[in-house]
Amino acid sequence: MKKLRDYGITIGKLSPGPRNQITDISGVTVGHSTIKDGSIQTGVTVILPHQGDIYNKKVVGACHIINGYSKPKGAVQVQELGSIEAPILLTNSLSIGAVWDGIIDHMLENNEEIGTSAGAVNPVIAECNDSFLNDIRGRHVKRHHVSEALADGKEDFGEGNFGAGTGMTAFGLKGGIGSSSRVVEFDDRHYTIGSLVLTNFGRLEDLMIDGRKIGAWINEKQEEKDEEHPRDLQNQFSETKGSVVIVLATDAPLTDRQLERLSKRATVGLARTGAELAHKSGDLVIAFSTKNLITHAGTEVTETVERFEEDMLDRMFIGAIEAVEESVINSLITAEKTVGRDGHYRESLKDYIEDYLSQQQ
Amino acid sequence: MKKLRDYGITIGKLSPGPRNQITDISGVTVGHSTIKDGSIQTGVTVILPHQGDIYNKKVVGACHIINGYSKPKGAVQVQELGSIEAPILLTNSLSIGAVWDGIIDHMLENNEEIGTSAGAVNPVIAECNDSFLNDIRGRHVKRHHVSEALADGKEDFGEGNFGAGTGMTAFGLKGGIGSSSRVVEFDDRHYTIGSLVLTNFGRLEDLMIDGRKIGAWINEKQEEKDEEHPRDLQNQFSETKGSVVIVLATDAPLTDRQLERLSKRATVGLARTGAELAHKSGDLVIAFSTKNLITHAGTEVTETVERFEEDMLDRMFIGAIEAVEESVINSLITAEKTVGRDGHYRESLKDYIEDYLSQQQ
Amino acid sequence: MKKLRDYGITIGKLSPGPRNQITDISGVTVGHSTIKDGSIQTGVTVILPHQGDIYNKKVVGACHIINGYSKPKGAVQVQELGSIEAPILLTNSLSIGAVWDGIIDHMLENNEEIGTSAGAVNPVIAECNDSFLNDIRGRHVKRHHVSEALADGKEDFGEGNFGAGTGMTAFGLKGGIGSSSRVVEFDDRHYTIGSLVLTNFGRLEDLMIDGRKIGAWINEKQEEKDEEHPRDLQNQFSETKGSVVIVLATDAPLTDRQLERLSKRATVGLARTGAELAHKSGDLVIAFSTKNLITHAGTEVTETVERFEEDMLDRMFIGAIEAVEESVINSLITAEKTVGRDGHYRESLKDYIEDYLSQQQ
Amino acid sequence: MKKLRDYGITIGKLSPGPRNQITDISGVTVGHSTIKDGSIQTGVTVILPHQGDIYNKKVVGACHIINGYSKPKGAVQVQELGSIEAPILLTNSLSIGAVWDGIIDHMLENNEEIGTSAGAVNPVIAECNDSFLNDIRGRHVKRHHVSEALADGKEDFGEGNFGAGTGMTAFGLKGGIGSSSRVVEFDDRHYTIGSLVLTNFGRLEDLMIDGRKIGAWINEKQEEKDEEHPRDLQNQFSETKGSVVIVLATDAPLTDRQLERLSKRATVGLARTGAELAHKSGDLVIAFSTKNLITHAGTEVTETVERFEEDMLDRMFIGAIEAVEESVINSLITAEKTVGRDGHYRESLKDYIEDYLSQQQ
Repeated sequence: MKKLRDYGITIGKLSPGPRNQITDISGVTVGHSTIKDGSIQTGVTVILPHQGDIYNKKVVGACHIINGYSKPKGAVQVQELGSIEAPILLTNSLSIGAVWDGIIDHMLENNEEIGTSAGAVNPVIAECNDSFLNDIRGRHVKRHHVSEALADGKEDFGEGNFGAGTGMTAFGLKGGIGSSSRVVEFDDRHYTIGSLVLTNFGRLEDLMIDGRKIGAWINEKQEEKDEEHPRDLQNQFSETKGSVVIVLATDAPLTDRQLERLSKRATVGLARTGAELAHKSGDLVIAFSTKNLITHAGTEVTETVERFEEDMLDRMFIGAIEAVEESVINSLITAEKTVGRDGHYRESLKDYIEDYLSQQQ
Repeated sequence: MKKLRDYGITIGKLSPGPRNQITDISGVTVGHSTIKDGSIQTGVTVILPHQGDIYNKKVVGACHIINGYSKPKGAVQVQELGSIEAPILLTNSLSIGAVWDGIIDHMLENNEEIGTSAGAVNPVIAECNDSFLNDIRGRHVKRHHVSEALADGKEDFGEGNFGAGTGMTAFGLKGGIGSSSRVVEFDDRHYTIGSLVLTNFGRLEDLMIDGRKIGAWINEKQEEKDEEHPRDLQNQFSETKGSVVIVLATDAPLTDRQLERLSKRATVGLARTGAELAHKSGDLVIAFSTKNLITHAGTEVTETVERFEEDMLDRMFIGAIEAVEESVINSLITAEKTVGRDGHYRESLKDYIEDYLSQQQ
Repeated sequence: MKKLRDYGITIGKLSPGPRNQITDISGVTVGHSTIKDGSIQTGVTVILPHQGDIYNKKVVGACHIINGYSKPKGAVQVQELGSIEAPILLTNSLSIGAVWDGIIDHMLENNEEIGTSAGAVNPVIAECNDSFLNDIRGRHVKRHHVSEALADGKEDFGEGNFGAGTGMTAFGLKGGIGSSSRVVEFDDRHYTIGSLVLTNFGRLEDLMIDGRKIGAWINEKQEEKDEEHPRDLQNQFSETKGSVVIVLATDAPLTDRQLERLSKRATVGLARTGAELAHKSGDLVIAFSTKNLITHAGTEVTETVERFEEDMLDRMFIGAIEAVEESVINSLITAEKTVGRDGHYRESLKDYIEDYLSQQQ
Repeated sequence: MKKLRDYGITIGKLSPGPRNQITDISGVTVGHSTIKDGSIQTGVTVILPHQGDIYNKKVVGACHIINGYSKPKGAVQVQELGSIEAPILLTNSLSIGAVWDGIIDHMLENNEEIGTSAGAVNPVIAECNDSFLNDIRGRHVKRHHVSEALADGKEDFGEGNFGAGTGMTAFGLKGGIGSSSRVVEFDDRHYTIGSLVLTNFGRLEDLMIDGRKIGAWINEKQEEKDEEHPRDLQNQFSETKGSVVIVLATDAPLTDRQLERLSKRATVGLARTGAELAHKSGDLVIAFSTKNLITHAGTEVTETVERFEEDMLDRMFIGAIEAVEESVINSLITAEKTVGRDGHYRESLKDYIEDYLSQQQ
């Protein structure tokens, strides 16, 4: 898997962690269930905030809605309580029911107290609409795909056409799963911020890589190849059905409010790739910290935690911005050209990037 | 079905509509699927904002979170777009997946453009946790129950132990579905506001009816009957797992922002029944207007609509407050004593109200 | 000063602190500058969260907007940062400029770093419109009144017609400043919640005291006295220009998010006194905790703090509800009958309460 | 006044209006009061949404908080009511009191009903901290400067060091007032979107113009000139006290919610200039439409208005993004090198841009 840095391009000033993935945050794993068969191009991706009993040791969390043309499950409770108590799941827009049932199967099996002594559970599920490449009406995601994704959880996970990313389109190219991370240093310590994105938004002519307008260049190349289907100016305003989901993780002891502030900076990273937060693009950020876990139904009135000093947040913000920007490009550059439903297809950025860079010199 | 007014008690100053139900708003219907069998006490309730193609003629809508310890589906998009494009569904907290799949079945069948030319769809589903009376872990709600509830849709619908209300508990008594309405008059016209609630919150000792502390009185009666299980002072702070969902409908041409302001007044109605917005009570309001429908993928840039004057809102607010307060009491007084899971049972307010009123005189 | 409890009425189940004022929270003081001369009936009230350098030792804070027909200063930054860094001030709606200048005088004098090395400062100022009794257009509040109010700061402060409360009207009676507190006990410790309100809202016929409809009773009495000015039914919907500001303080180590959740419960206390959250009533809650102070421009990356367990919040919520309900009634019952601008006058609840209670028996 | 386009650089795909200023929206004017004398470098800028009685004919409005380290006045009521009823004012962070008093003088003089029959008034005032160049503690803005700014109102207004922009710093260079506009075309009509910004944020090394990293280039040039004061790597994280205020105007009949959605896209424009939404940067958007004016205390229950179709918003969003991006660069490129308080100085982008562009070729 060749990522953006393998082409000699770095984003920003901060250094990534050893994997340059969200799993650089200790304890975080990612699993995919990829469903791929002709007109079926879809799947499920699961992010585990830590490897223990998440329901009984919740992570501090936040959910920020950039643009709410989106059908997430679980956002309301995360915003109220500032915590996440179940794995985070990504899938297509019509499979939320199956994924909900799949994760409830898992939670009920692992936590017998749910629905008896302990109340219900609030899984977080986010979606993008992969109907351009995928037969989304067929609802090919089943609840067992959640188990598959959970079983696949690991630190070294695939990007591009994997899991929920299988059928996604971004900037008129093949999109999907992308990830990156940043190490933020202070005098006596350092923290890591990781980002995982599911990209399904944007118009080709807007795509930028670190300020380079590569999308306009690819657009011209495609038009040359494709003279019988000229894209007129009007077309540039064509409806961009789409969405992007961004998951941010950190081992810094941020509070829920601080995580929400961090989440808002994701928009800056997005904007620098050419995002325009289109009307129909459901753009959502879910963030968590692996520090200061919250006990379910604890019996202590108070507990001692570390609080991150508000005035130290700027470096964390920069880390989030850079990681998101690089994750979006990674989702494109790791993706494979894909033919799906009704012969619809999406080319891959990787089939253009080298030509583009060589002609830039 | 004997409601609060049938016991000679009226709430507030405004008059209800002819049915004193949310269906006093023309076009609105309510249907139930009731699942009832020993330890299974649950179901689905569906509210149709109008009788046409809701996806293509969306209603102006709002969603207000009073307390977000709640797992609704669809709130985010309603808040972003100010519209509702599918039936509104109520069920138990672990059946959101099944209900989601059921309503998606229905929408895909009726709207072939969904997932092909038209993007996805955003059903609104809200839940309360009926696990005290119902075997919620058994997930007895299936997708076909959504069809049943849809088929049952009518103007003259049942309150109390029906549909999603079948297994609910409120103020330590049997809760469930309740409804009421108010007519708001202006010089030259009138509008109607309707409310439907799903109650599953509150502590018995807090219950008030129009200022009367009937809950404390019932509590004493129950303690007399039940001396072997005295409830000590500590108990009054016992965890109130619960929730309440409130649906408001009106034929006044309110904008989404005005509907949100209306929704916030629901808290006043709740408070007057003894609600304390407990930490674990997911309290949610969904509101819509049947005027100024919104065309999906319309081709006009602008359209002409009626806008309700902001300074005329106060009467609408009072209507919402009164309708919510009365709906909550109706949900209790129409409910039947119920024995459910593990012999758990809830008594009915109707078995106390006459004694209470007679000793008050 | 005779308060509600002195008439034998208690609100709720929890006990108040020793003073039954917001100053039961250690370190909190309140000062007034009262401006009273015929048609001038106004003033300034200041709440100090603690007696040290608030700018350099900020309190954790929150600001909740119940109804935003309101002109507060400072809310935006409190919501972003979750902290309050200056005294909290209350005044009339057209005197925010003078009060702002007065508190800036004070802050610049005491904190030389402001505007040089340390950035600006964010005072929190809230207002109600006292124009019924006060010549508000005359803008009689001057910046020196802020110094006066600051100099007056003490634990044992006046309620009713004091400071910002001098010219306020509530429920058609004389309103103003009211306060109350509650002690919340846990096995091994207790915390205190205090409330201070500035009341200027509500219609007489809606006033309730602990469920008793005293407002309707007073309304009848007034109509009997005042037959030449009958109030017809329509009048009950007359525009209620008004507002209420609620300040909550606690010594429990709540986070900003938890303080916001606490603030939302103030609506319940309000609702039980007859509030209807009228369209034109600017209803606002400001809350702070005196624990876990935040150092301005601290040099540590993290610090250790106590975090209040989410699941222990319910008792705190009940404390806030009860304290707010009782504070509102205290603001009425401590106020004196007042004649102000253009002969406008407001009677006092205290001139009705004893008759009302005696005829109730 | 030479603006970005005069150097041959255009931003985006849409065309600006005839002035390329916010005053391309018919009825909008801008006035400045500039206070400039050695260590005093500050002022007031006023935007009039239309030339009539704004209090009695309010504009539909919205206020979006990008980052709330900010002290605006008036945001809360704009968010609640979706309207703006007074001129919009910009000034420095410690002069809000004087500007408040100045605009209240004006409103009371012009609207005798305020504070008697008509309630109070909600001016909108936003600020940035100009203390690097300006003696902000001296509070040199007086209430008469508001009258001056109002008297100066015109369509063809100054950018750069004018009014509130006089002492502002952006990207380590001289910032201030900038403006731009875009025309959005539909088949049968067109609308205009205008933007006015007050820039006081950002780090030099982050400045980008349409993807070009000019900030890093200027940074190097400055370091060469300034070897005795090397800026080390650490410095790049130095605290960025700052802020940006963005005012958006349109003649499209957007609702308040649609204006809020539009406002959120301003972040994209900002991000593309190098903004990082720093912790201490108070970033705020105020938006209004000049269509569908709202009558104060109207007597009709409803009125007929034009509603902009939600699905047509994308072009408006693109217009806002482009106008904001170009406005920020205009604020820099029109500004003059300025020496202020304590010999602090800021250079102008215009003294670098031509060299930069020539070496790029």
